[in-house]
Amino acid sequence: MNRTERGRREFTEVMTFAPPPDSTAAASALIDFVFGEVWPRPALSRRDRRFVTLPCVAAADAEGPLRDHVYAALNSGDLTITEMRETVLHFAVYGGWPKASRFNITVDEQWDRIHRERGQQPPPPEPLLPLPTASDPELRLAGGEQSFKDINCMPYAPIRDNPYSGAGILNFVFGEMWLRPGLGMKERRLVTVACVAFQDAPVPILSHVYAALKSRDVSFDEMDEVALHFAAYYGWPKASHLNQVIGEQKQRVLDEWRQG
Amino acid sequence: MNRTERGRREFTEVMTFAPPPDSTAAASALIDFVFGEVWPRPALSRRDRRFVTLPCVAAADAEGPLRDHVYAALNSGDLTITEMRETVLHFAVYGGWPKASRFNITVDEQWDRIHRERGQQPPPPEPLLPLPTASDPELRLAGGEQSFKDINCMPYAPIRDNPYSGAGILNFVFGEMWLRPGLGMKERRLVTVACVAFQDAPVPILSHVYAALKSRDVSFDEMDEVALHFAAYYGWPKASHLNQVIGEQKQRVLDEWRQG
Amino acid sequence: MNRTERGRREFTEVMTFAPPPDSTAAASALIDFVFGEVWPRPALSRRDRRFVTLPCVAAADAEGPLRDHVYAALNSGDLTITEMRETVLHFAVYGGWPKASRFNITVDEQWDRIHRERGQQPPPPEPLLPLPTASDPELRLAGGEQSFKDINCMPYAPIRDNPYSGAGILNFVFGEMWLRPGLGMKERRLVTVACVAFQDAPVPILSHVYAALKSRDVSFDEMDEVALHFAAYYGWPKASHLNQVIGEQKQRVLDEWRQG
Repeated sequence: MNRTERGRREFTEVMTFAPPPDSTAAASALIDFVFGEVWPRPALSRRDRRFVTLPCVAAADAEGPLRDHVYAALNSGDLTITEMRETVLHFAVYGGWPKASRFNITVDEQWDRIHRERGQQPPPPEPLLPLPTASDPELRLAGGEQSFKDINCMPYAPIRDNPYSGAGILNFVFGEMWLRPGLGMKERRLVTVACVAFQDAPVPILSHVYAALKSRDVSFDEMDEVALHFAAYYGWPKASHLNQVIGEQKQRVLDEWRQG
Repeated sequence: MNRTERGRREFTEVMTFAPPPDSTAAASALIDFVFGEVWPRPALSRRDRRFVTLPCVAAADAEGPLRDHVYAALNSGDLTITEMRETVLHFAVYGGWPKASRFNITVDEQWDRIHRERGQQPPPPEPLLPLPTASDPELRLAGGEQSFKDINCMPYAPIRDNPYSGAGILNFVFGEMWLRPGLGMKERRLVTVACVAFQDAPVPILSHVYAALKSRDVSFDEMDEVALHFAAYYGWPKASHLNQVIGEQKQRVLDEWRQG
Repeated sequence: MNRTERGRREFTEVMTFAPPPDSTAAASALIDFVFGEVWPRPALSRRDRRFVTLPCVAAADAEGPLRDHVYAALNSGDLTITEMRETVLHFAVYGGWPKASRFNITVDEQWDRIHRERGQQPPPPEPLLPLPTASDPELRLAGGEQSFKDINCMPYAPIRDNPYSGAGILNFVFGEMWLRPGLGMKERRLVTVACVAFQDAPVPILSHVYAALKSRDVSFDEMDEVALHFAAYYGWPKASHLNQVIGEQKQRVLDEWRQG
């Protein structure tokens, strides 16, 4: 089986529909390289790769790829609708709410479509309340500080008396969003790493790659695969930076494990 | 006074320091066009233009321009530190937390620098608590629904039972963030329009341009200036789209005002 | 002839259709500044400027500008369809596949439209095979290493035993994509510089600006124009960073030429 055949078979398995007939340079390379060579690689499962792919297509806000990857992730059964909806919220925080709004609408549309294709009705959504967070503002912030330390594998939390870090990071991002049930820590790590890689602000990319490795939620080999998968879906320049950060943070974590 | 002289004078006033000696094509056009022709235009004040510029330089994550515009906005006295910190939080929601993290660090650094240059100590930060939001989750969501309707000038709010819209939009974005004191509604509108313009998801750009105009927080003439200012700081392709949306939403608002 | 008249004439020549009637601030400045002052500048030809413009409008994913610039590049005859399709593939690698997918669809649509307007049938696409790359994996990697060194003007290549650099960079990006016929090296350099400028990861922007200058595929004067043209299409903050990098890399290349 040659590369194109392997790519077309992988495309069908990943996307849950046959590749379109298109022999342009970009479409052929999508089949030959992205599906024929990247998706079938070891270390990172097909399901794991979806948590890198989905933030990338949501950030790129290219209508077709976003629609197709949301459909494929749900239609394959790789993601439950609960996981998908938590992925949208997690993406909203790390990629921005406007793009998340489109992602959210697309999830609704594709969830309806899948049920329509199966002659079914979509089930009613799960109730939001009760939220898994303390109501009292003081307790909520204290929970956010502990969660910030645990998730970032750091001994300290940022100050409360700053709107960004107090009202935002402690109160909502780590005090509530990261603690929501419905999506595993490994999956949240993969979504986050993809987002910090395309946003590429210098500190968050370091701290989230570090914490994903240090927590052992993502293994070294898995993280190397994230860099390649991300390159295909967001472009090589940002992936090159991610790959460099991964190399440095692997060394830092190794050094800490040897010392500790 | 020719265009270059006007541009250099305007640069000095806006940036609070003299333009660097650089006669390359891009640097010259920055002086001649962006400072000589865009910043001095009527309808949108220098202070207003900062609320479009800051999200653009924070999103572009170009180190130098972000540093310089944060410094200039604070050093000129156009923004208070409280307004700047609320701008960072607002930007975090609409532009993504990783980029906001860099923005937040830059604000701290430039605030320190300004005080150092003046031989002063930065004042201690304002206390975060009490938050201006109900603690009870049910009341908090109800507040978010009302705030969503008021701010978006819409008769309905999205469903609670969806993580993105319930835990995110109602609970935090409209239930808390938009209601925070320290930044005026016009300023929040300008930051939001800049962010939805660079994120360019189809629905949010419509709804936020519409609401800014419908609420009369931003006038028609001011909004036209936002499109041009945004073009300079985020490029013509996205600005063309924004400009088209503005044209459509002005018509929609006019039609509604005539009918109502 | 005043600036607006010059801008309208230039718009018509570049876009191959008349400028739309629109006197808003942003639309007027697009005519007066971008078409009246940037496009007619010397050093970089109209055709060259298209290889900067196309990646920017594809990345900005503003539907209208992408459609119009793809149409104009093909309808003017400045780019052949083969060059355009290779540009899409090159963009896919440096800007990510999702946005490239939209770009690719737009090329198909506009190519059909051009032929429809001329009462013609689009010719069948050129056959993809044979690829200019060895099939044997070992030879393929060896070819990628040599190509990496040649194109980046560097004496070393990255390690094979890393998914990003082995399976991605050596095997596909430099082992195959850059070596494809159908698009010249200067054109690939221009597309790449535009992409690394909007992705703005720290190392790729340095290395690709350096290699474009060092190889003499892009002259110093041309590169200065790239920065200005990019400013118009992707905004001044990222263009300022690009312009700074260009200044540094020109100096580095000059120093090497003097020493060597």
